[in-house]
Amino acid sequence: MELPEGYNFRRVKVTDHNEYLDVLRVLTTVGEINEAQFKELVDHWNSVEGIYYPQVITDTQGKVVATGCLVVERKAIHQCGKVGHIEDIAVCKLQQGKGLGLVLIQGLTAIAEKEGCYKVILDCSDHNVGFYNKCGYTHSGCEMVKRFD
Amino acid sequence: MELPEGYNFRRVKVTDHNEYLDVLRVLTTVGEINEAQFKELVDHWNSVEGIYYPQVITDTQGKVVATGCLVVERKAIHQCGKVGHIEDIAVCKLQQGKGLGLVLIQGLTAIAEKEGCYKVILDCSDHNVGFYNKCGYTHSGCEMVKRFD
Repeated sequence: MELPEGYNFRRVKVTDHNEYLDVLRVLTTVGEINEAQFKELVDHWNSVEGIYYPQVITDTQGKVVATGCLVVERKAIHQCGKVGHIEDIAVCKLQQGKGLGLVLIQGLTAIAEKEGCYKVILDCSDHNVGFYNKCGYTHSGCEMVKRFD
Repeated sequence: MELPEGYNFRRVKVTDHNEYLDVLRVLTTVGEINEAQFKELVDHWNSVEGIYYPQVITDTQGKVVATGCLVVERKAIHQCGKVGHIEDIAVCKLQQGKGLGLVLIQGLTAIAEKEGCYKVILDCSDHNVGFYNKCGYTHSGCEMVKRFD
């Protein structure tokens, strides 16, 4: 799967602030995050090398239309192996149906492989299992959650 | 749930090397990891503040008998919220049945709450759902995986 012409897959920048947060709002509650707070977060992601890979897809105008993050965890098991966690995949409503989600997952998965992960995992709802199967992922367990809010 | 008398819940140390890896071997493949490699890993976990909380339970002799790790991820969603990921829960075979797994999950969950996470998630196999229900976790989705090895 390829991106439409003029679209781009790249790391998030501090200047993506409003566009990035707007895309995430299709997914869940984001709240009000001002420019300084967003900068602090992106700076943190950039400061801890080899852990966060927050990526976006931009359209022909350079506007952020999809987001997703790979988090690389260093473990002891599997010979001090690394596991990639894919998080917060969101595609802006008007851009859905163009295969951007698939390109995003392929892109994040490729980063994980290049960084030496032995596997990549992600959690999804039952109705998204088919989509992730198309991305080459298979069902392997149950996600359990405890919320504090 | 409380620890048996003389047992302790604490962060892993470089000197736990062999005992820590032996406990993890009940879970999956660990491989041969020498002292220098283990030190490098623990030093890495310690160097990136606020991300890794690799914990152990020790018995009355100070021997490592259970392990588990909390990884705290900083997100943009939920007002720049934090999510805890519980990973690699292992209890040494001879010590199973004493409730150590439950204490471990409670201890890691308490760290996540103290660190300001809005939720904690973990992945498990179907037959462990009942155990995590007892720990206060509920089933919320599917774990999907892609392996490179």
